[in-house]
Amino acid sequence: MDRNKKVLITGANGFTGRHACQFFADCGYDVTGMVRSLPSKRSDVKLIYGDLGCQQRIEEVIKEIKPELILHLAGLNNVGESWVVPDECISTNVMGTVHLLEAVRNSCPEAKMIVVGSMLQEQPEEIPANPYSLSKTIQFQVSKAWEHLYEMNILFVKPTNLIGPGPANGICSILAQKIVQMESGKQSGTISLDSLDASRDFLDVRDAVKAFAILAELGQKGHVYELGTGVKRPLREVIEELRQLSVIEFEVNEQKPQKRTMTHVSGYSTLQDLNNLGWEPSISLQTSLRDILEYHRRRKGENMDE
Amino acid sequence: MDRNKKVLITGANGFTGRHACQFFADCGYDVTGMVRSLPSKRSDVKLIYGDLGCQQRIEEVIKEIKPELILHLAGLNNVGESWVVPDECISTNVMGTVHLLEAVRNSCPEAKMIVVGSMLQEQPEEIPANPYSLSKTIQFQVSKAWEHLYEMNILFVKPTNLIGPGPANGICSILAQKIVQMESGKQSGTISLDSLDASRDFLDVRDAVKAFAILAELGQKGHVYELGTGVKRPLREVIEELRQLSVIEFEVNEQKPQKRTMTHVSGYSTLQDLNNLGWEPSISLQTSLRDILEYHRRRKGENMDE
Repeated sequence: MDRNKKVLITGANGFTGRHACQFFADCGYDVTGMVRSLPSKRSDVKLIYGDLGCQQRIEEVIKEIKPELILHLAGLNNVGESWVVPDECISTNVMGTVHLLEAVRNSCPEAKMIVVGSMLQEQPEEIPANPYSLSKTIQFQVSKAWEHLYEMNILFVKPTNLIGPGPANGICSILAQKIVQMESGKQSGTISLDSLDASRDFLDVRDAVKAFAILAELGQKGHVYELGTGVKRPLREVIEELRQLSVIEFEVNEQKPQKRTMTHVSGYSTLQDLNNLGWEPSISLQTSLRDILEYHRRRKGENMDE
Repeated sequence: MDRNKKVLITGANGFTGRHACQFFADCGYDVTGMVRSLPSKRSDVKLIYGDLGCQQRIEEVIKEIKPELILHLAGLNNVGESWVVPDECISTNVMGTVHLLEAVRNSCPEAKMIVVGSMLQEQPEEIPANPYSLSKTIQFQVSKAWEHLYEMNILFVKPTNLIGPGPANGICSILAQKIVQMESGKQSGTISLDSLDASRDFLDVRDAVKAFAILAELGQKGHVYELGTGVKRPLREVIEELRQLSVIEFEVNEQKPQKRTMTHVSGYSTLQDLNNLGWEPSISLQTSLRDILEYHRRRKGENMDE
């Protein structure tokens, strides 16, 4: 690993972005995180302002940093909101990526770029389940087109549901927040869920960023790497783990799944490829959930101090 | 046919748009043409200013017109330029369409919308031949997604190479311009071509706009209508027709086809559907080419008068 390699991580203030910045910096990379707004509180990495919607600014950032590796994590990822403002979702996830691809093509065409999609995205010929999923499908299509038409060094990752401590908006984080709220009120309560039997492949974000670092060195141009544990777990199991980790009792109210909130997940086909590069998940679901609860308890405590 | 039906035609200053405006107006529709810049010389239809890149303006136009039918023809269609500024091509053809879809969804969700793609576009799972083709493929994907996810009344047309009098940028128009230039100098010359054997399905634009009008009344939501003659003709045939229609002699210099200028055309699969609705092409290749030559001769004459 070239420890002075210049790495630009987009979406550096996001859930995955924060973990990625920290891990790549710990590995010795020269990391710059691109963010839409500059926070005052971070000291783990250099941050640079850049909104993917502003092509000119993205060009400036790439010219200034001249990264050798770009880890592209930025984007809107809220499925619910994507139904309401699908244009913003397409604009940010598709045009934002196009702006980045063009800036790299113009100013550092030799750079390696890792585009991070989602296991929720469909194959391009399928009808998308929601506008978010459409935007991620098209994000891959345009990136693949640039990789192919302009012969750029781009590779692709499709992570499953990433969980772990931090500002996530996934189901585990939402459940943990509700439980922490009940804990702080020291009273029991009820959690409503669509279906306890809905099952997903949950992967700890800290395992995911290790995979990104392996791909930064060993990932092959043009390849799509699926990233998951390979095991789907029903929400029932998540709930039971959380029940054991929590200091309060709670009821679960199971509702019927709604069509719009159902997520279509394609089967894995290249999951083995990352294992072949030496990666495997190392953090158990229990550990992830414990750390998520701890994160929200700390945050609750900090907010109450304010 | 409801003769007072309000029709908005985007790209009204374009090659196909001009013919569409005239034909729909002649049919008795209440036509408004949307254009990026307002010309001073037209009196055939009402024109309204609207740049697809400006979401706010598109919203205003749709609110003001409240069209019952939208014929969406606007977009960038220059394959060569799309290699140089692929971001503009994606932005105009994809985000422009998204802006239009959102404006229709917000202000006249019952309207029928005809999205006009191209036979040059690939199936979404294929690697695109060029950025233009990618942009048209994605334009269809987003429109299909809106049709499906928001249950909008959208249908699709994939026309083959449209030819005819007017400001086209296709091969027939380019050849005619060269010949008219030679004619005006009253001297012979040489025309360079990639390959005389490259064959395409040429359809007169005046036949195409008749198909649009049939689809305006009879087209089915969600359906993709292929639009062509069904017969591919080699450029050799176009050259021979032009030779007979021209008053000068010219040589043809055949070059090897280049990878980047080759166009991938998927085979037809739904061509019959428009015939089943009563449409068939009526203008011969000879007539189209004669009218194209006449158009460029007139334009040459007008330019020389200035």
